[in-house]
Amino acid sequence: MKIVTISREFGSGGRELGKRLADELGFDYYDREIITAIAQAQGMDERYVEKALEGGAWQNVPLTYGRSFALGPVLQSTQTGLLVEQRLVIESIAKAGRDCVIVGRDADILLAAQNPFTIFVCADMDAKVRRCMERAGEGEALSRKAVEQNIKRIDKARARSREMISDSKWGQGGSYHMTVNTSSWDIRELTGAVAGFVTRWFSRAR
Amino acid sequence: MKIVTISREFGSGGRELGKRLADELGFDYYDREIITAIAQAQGMDERYVEKALEGGAWQNVPLTYGRSFALGPVLQSTQTGLLVEQRLVIESIAKAGRDCVIVGRDADILLAAQNPFTIFVCADMDAKVRRCMERAGEGEALSRKAVEQNIKRIDKARARSREMISDSKWGQGGSYHMTVNTSSWDIRELTGAVAGFVTRWFSRAR
Repeated sequence: MKIVTISREFGSGGRELGKRLADELGFDYYDREIITAIAQAQGMDERYVEKALEGGAWQNVPLTYGRSFALGPVLQSTQTGLLVEQRLVIESIAKAGRDCVIVGRDADILLAAQNPFTIFVCADMDAKVRRCMERAGEGEALSRKAVEQNIKRIDKARARSREMISDSKWGQGGSYHMTVNTSSWDIRELTGAVAGFVTRWFSRAR
Repeated sequence: MKIVTISREFGSGGRELGKRLADELGFDYYDREIITAIAQAQGMDERYVEKALEGGAWQNVPLTYGRSFALGPVLQSTQTGLLVEQRLVIESIAKAGRDCVIVGRDADILLAAQNPFTIFVCADMDAKVRRCMERAGEGEALSRKAVEQNIKRIDKARARSREMISDSKWGQGGSYHMTVNTSSWDIRELTGAVAGFVTRWFSRAR
């Protein structure tokens, strides 16, 4: 079984790269599917799970999210509880034994025993801000400064989440097999280059 | 003209990767040649130039290195002076207009206007220590601890040298187009994977 994990800075295009990479390699793709599975297992609203796992935003999530019968589990749950569920979901993906690309969720750490190829995707701040502003809907026009602050906040939470389960530092080159900066690429062309690299790694002599 | 720069952690195998990459791509290769050129221009001993550019070791270099007629320049020169000379040498390589791989010497920063493809090469500490111990001659048997300290000292000096001329941080993913961790590779196989990636970058649509 071949697993590729994608960790990424917010706004770097890592999710798009992961999706395209899965298509190009013919691998399964997991991203939001993980949130959905956690939400179903815990009887919670997906948005609630997503926000809670973002960590930094924990305090800002109203407890009225979710269906009313889920109020019990909601009140009992903690971010830690959701992280346990996340681990179970990711381990079940690995147990299925199919080649896959997993975006985010510290899958590189959680599946270390399966020896995944681990990628970190980053970009220059200007490029990240531009991508976020393009992605935002018309009603969500934000200042450049607000977008940059949001990027930093989310990435900080991602780094913290990783630090809860690993000594290896989020975003540092040595923590991954490969780090790519998307700023000078069209993501479609980058996908081809990464796919070639990944394929070489899985077929290397060991 | 296509330029590839290799920055690297000490002991990561970055130099070997750079040499093999130049061979595979059919590019010129610059590494010690730069030290030689600086030493010749300044009328200094190569080892003196190398130690001085390492930075951290500056105070430990006896001024008696070098041929006696070079004593004048030796006394006048400072690390800053050598860095100026280094910049001139690297710029002259770029002016020659030939495709090349340049290892170290902050060439990625110095040649930013030529839009080089910039690679950072890292490895797990265990792998770096092993590589350094294998490389050491019989008479230089060092403890693991001493080797690790040496790696950290040299990398710290490299980071400092970069900070003198750039805001972009040494060793951080976002400072380079690509970062590779050599730990799980045979360098020959990694060279093929990197060559493929680099070739895609130079032929991408712009």
